[in-house]
Amino acid sequence: MSTAPACLSHSRITITPALRAAVDRLDHRSRHQASYHFGWITAGGAPTSADAGKAVRPALALLSAEAVGAPPEVALPGAVAVELVHNFSLVHDDLMDGDEERRHRRTVWRLWGAPSAILTGDALLALAQEVLLDTGLSTAAPAARLLARTTRHLIRGQVQDLAFEQRAHVTLEECVDMAAGKTGALLSASASIGAVLAGAPEAAVDALALYGDQLGLAFQLVDDVLGIWGDPAVTGKPVHSDLRSRKKSLPVTYALHQDGPAGAELAAWLTSRGTPGEAELRRVAGLVEDAGGRDWALAEAARRLALAEDALRGAELDAGARGELLALGRFVVDREV
Amino acid sequence: MSTAPACLSHSRITITPALRAAVDRLDHRSRHQASYHFGWITAGGAPTSADAGKAVRPALALLSAEAVGAPPEVALPGAVAVELVHNFSLVHDDLMDGDEERRHRRTVWRLWGAPSAILTGDALLALAQEVLLDTGLSTAAPAARLLARTTRHLIRGQVQDLAFEQRAHVTLEECVDMAAGKTGALLSASASIGAVLAGAPEAAVDALALYGDQLGLAFQLVDDVLGIWGDPAVTGKPVHSDLRSRKKSLPVTYALHQDGPAGAELAAWLTSRGTPGEAELRRVAGLVEDAGGRDWALAEAARRLALAEDALRGAELDAGARGELLALGRFVVDREV
Repeated sequence: MSTAPACLSHSRITITPALRAAVDRLDHRSRHQASYHFGWITAGGAPTSADAGKAVRPALALLSAEAVGAPPEVALPGAVAVELVHNFSLVHDDLMDGDEERRHRRTVWRLWGAPSAILTGDALLALAQEVLLDTGLSTAAPAARLLARTTRHLIRGQVQDLAFEQRAHVTLEECVDMAAGKTGALLSASASIGAVLAGAPEAAVDALALYGDQLGLAFQLVDDVLGIWGDPAVTGKPVHSDLRSRKKSLPVTYALHQDGPAGAELAAWLTSRGTPGEAELRRVAGLVEDAGGRDWALAEAARRLALAEDALRGAELDAGARGELLALGRFVVDREV
Repeated sequence: MSTAPACLSHSRITITPALRAAVDRLDHRSRHQASYHFGWITAGGAPTSADAGKAVRPALALLSAEAVGAPPEVALPGAVAVELVHNFSLVHDDLMDGDEERRHRRTVWRLWGAPSAILTGDALLALAQEVLLDTGLSTAAPAARLLARTTRHLIRGQVQDLAFEQRAHVTLEECVDMAAGKTGALLSASASIGAVLAGAPEAAVDALALYGDQLGLAFQLVDDVLGIWGDPAVTGKPVHSDLRSRKKSLPVTYALHQDGPAGAELAAWLTSRGTPGEAELRRVAGLVEDAGGRDWALAEAARRLALAEDALRGAELDAGARGELLALGRFVVDREV
């Protein structure tokens, strides 16, 4: 069994030629901007190899074919397609959120303007379907259908995320549902699309999809903890970044719904205005912690990861691939918290 | 044979329930904004029946199934899908172009902001694929593949359109290629997707696709003539609207490439700044006309329409449906010029 980092590295190497071939089909401008976004070229067009992210989704896709006894090549178009959908959402989200940097490089909209970011994102979304359907496999249609449905849920999650920013009250259930859409849906599709392309039995596909759903929630819970308490040297984001933007993340939403002074004080702070200083942010992080937000998020992440693992263990899957999926899931969730 | 207006009206009535059922799957906000965009509700959510456009694309899709001897119901998911892709592009284009009104109503981005317009457009694009693939038809995969490829060309056309605004020189060939992407691609897919869903022979599908391609160019040529010389009472746009924005439309691009004083004066004017008055716009419209831009565009539209009709006449198609396609094409192109 290879380790998770080796698995991710292998997946990145496996999919990059197919991903580049797909992006090469785009018109000149969309190709240039997508190639920049993927870290293959500089903004000026010179070849480079910038950080293109961990490629977790393609790795899950390739392993999901192996898990049902198929060669990973069967899943390759699926691995490319989920990476294209993920990056469609990043390019559009960066624009919507006004984020000027991603992985220490300027974002597409920041370099080329909003219309370019809209069109490049649109092009990546359409391309994801084209890559799947061009295979001519009889299983391409169910895989493309899964991807279309997943995109609907992904968009629903982003819609909720933006709506919650403008609402005073968000229930914990709504917040979990948002994370299930924004993060869980595409991880679920990634963890099952290889099995769908391989024509695996429904039970195996469902188990892999459930694994991805629960892994996605565990990942988001940990990500939200890191967004408040993460080490900037590790996360690459400023300390307390999610508090600075007064984001109703999962730990914050949990804390808001607890009785006691910490939750009430936190609620009052969230409706306040102005740019908080470091001391204020430390105090607010303390309120979330005092109301149990941090402990709950970490316990819930562990519970979701266990549910994910149960789903894999309860299904008839290739033992080696199952082991790699388990290792990959733990690697993704067990970051420095 | 029914007349073209009756055919369009019938098509609108046929597809609306399926289109509404598809939009009902979207999250609450995307559904609301899409339903407003389609003219079914007011911005506040009250039922209404505003102008939703002519539904040319769904009409072509339904006729393309009948043309190959299949019942129009076979094409219904295709008709819904092309209408969804068309409206995805309208919602995103309105935002990119900064257009505040469409069909005398405020645009989605103007009412709900840029992020909403981006997400609603994204949702419509993903939904188009889902509608096709949910049919479970064995022909859904080739139809979905056609739609994905078409979307790539549609985006290419919009990318070119935006790029040409910033360029001093655009060849007539580039301008025609842009129109082929922005207008021709989706009309081509519309005119053939019903035949694809019906599993028709390749020759019939190709003839219908060619019909749509050429019809799209003829339509765009006439549209560009109307954008300069059209009667505002008929077009719903201000007089000389394409000249006001110094758009390098097809007649303008043709005129720019002709020898003689009119073309040279036009070229100088296009690089000038400031808001032109009515007298100046009349003078510039005269330059385009003097350089032959109007005559060329109308002659080229007639030539393209003849090529479209030749494609239909040369293929083995149902005579009644062929007649309706011919009538529909003429109705779309022969507007008040």
